[in-house]
Amino acid sequence: MTTDPQRDIVTAGFVVIGDEILSGRTKDKNIGYLAEFLTAIGIDLVEVRVVPDVEERIVEAVRALSERCTYVFTSGGIGPTHDDITADAIARAFGVGIDHDPRAVAILRAFYPEGQLTEARLRMARIPHGAELIENAVSRAPGFRIGNVHVMAGVPAVMQAMLDAIAPTLKTGLKMHTAAIDADLPESRLAGALREIQDAHPGVMIGSYPRSNDGRFSTQVVVRARDTALLETAERAVRAAVDSLLAP
Amino acid sequence: MTTDPQRDIVTAGFVVIGDEILSGRTKDKNIGYLAEFLTAIGIDLVEVRVVPDVEERIVEAVRALSERCTYVFTSGGIGPTHDDITADAIARAFGVGIDHDPRAVAILRAFYPEGQLTEARLRMARIPHGAELIENAVSRAPGFRIGNVHVMAGVPAVMQAMLDAIAPTLKTGLKMHTAAIDADLPESRLAGALREIQDAHPGVMIGSYPRSNDGRFSTQVVVRARDTALLETAERAVRAAVDSLLAP
Repeated sequence: MTTDPQRDIVTAGFVVIGDEILSGRTKDKNIGYLAEFLTAIGIDLVEVRVVPDVEERIVEAVRALSERCTYVFTSGGIGPTHDDITADAIARAFGVGIDHDPRAVAILRAFYPEGQLTEARLRMARIPHGAELIENAVSRAPGFRIGNVHVMAGVPAVMQAMLDAIAPTLKTGLKMHTAAIDADLPESRLAGALREIQDAHPGVMIGSYPRSNDGRFSTQVVVRARDTALLETAERAVRAAVDSLLAP
Repeated sequence: MTTDPQRDIVTAGFVVIGDEILSGRTKDKNIGYLAEFLTAIGIDLVEVRVVPDVEERIVEAVRALSERCTYVFTSGGIGPTHDDITADAIARAFGVGIDHDPRAVAILRAFYPEGQLTEARLRMARIPHGAELIENAVSRAPGFRIGNVHVMAGVPAVMQAMLDAIAPTLKTGLKMHTAAIDADLPESRLAGALREIQDAHPGVMIGSYPRSNDGRFSTQVVVRARDTALLETAERAVRAAVDSLLAP
């Protein structure tokens, strides 16, 4: 199996928007979820930025990643309150207008009981011109896609539902396969062998992750490749090196 | 109490380095920890970037945040293996050389038994010219500071120990005080009142964080200010608004 990097590699950037993550008050759960989700469908997450609820910071991060990646995802800042400024920032990043979107208004109107679609809730229907809506199966107020940017909610359950709605529309790349080898050795004892195996196997990425448990260090070696035959060859080489280092 | 923003606000950026976070294989624990740690000592974390083990990506992120923030912290990529390229990337970002540092070599020599300071382990003593070492109370191999950039390990226990070593050297700002108000209301019902309170209280930041629990939405309102009197006034206004919305 040969791979054409131009055709087969699909990349993504993720912008997490919210003062609450930067202050430590809320612990992010979306980065790990999105990373695993994208890896599973063959999209490489290549950069994440966490930015505050400040329009120019959102614009800058979205523009930078939008130019560099096949897709950008954002989470946070699309609710009904004054600090939800993501939709306006995205409109500015794309140089388009923003207004109440009739499709989004209709979704909210169908959801809220008569008389309860307040001005604040209507704010959630403000969508940049030219954007497509992203369905929200949990709490209805939609996300949206404009250009290669997918704007999602920050509440993990809602973000996950939106991601499920988006997934079928994404071009996915050649899946990255991985093999993990747990070695009861500190990584400094493995380092020489891993470097040799890495040098001998272009097309394979070998990562080495130290772990500490009660002061005892062990290592997880992760071998990654798009080509399964290459992966197996490199994995066998790593296992042989570990066994030989552990041999009495 | 009046505040001089030029003097009293200290900011930080954080660069998390590692393919394993971007692939989702390892779930980051350092962002939340550092965010809380810095908030507690009066430093505002203003941006986080997660970048892969690719030198130019590390250089770009470190340079961007180093120009913008009082301090930059990095985690990951300073171990003994071939994929640990952070020290070289930082040297390149600062345009300085890098070599085995005699102070770092001495620390490793004192730690490893005779004959066990292999070439791979010695790699952990490669430190950019002009850098100061950061003590590692857990596994000895030091981090380092160069300019306003603090380079730490990625293993959470080691990063936390290094952060404790760094903390006394940091200039800290006027602490940001917070008050949290839990409201058993969806945030869309609170939005109008919060916007009015925000508009009436410059110097205070009001954040609103929706929560979903079994399909039921509630909201945590977080009021933040450097001035405690201002904080209390705004907090009282939020509590009064919540009470009046909940009144039968």
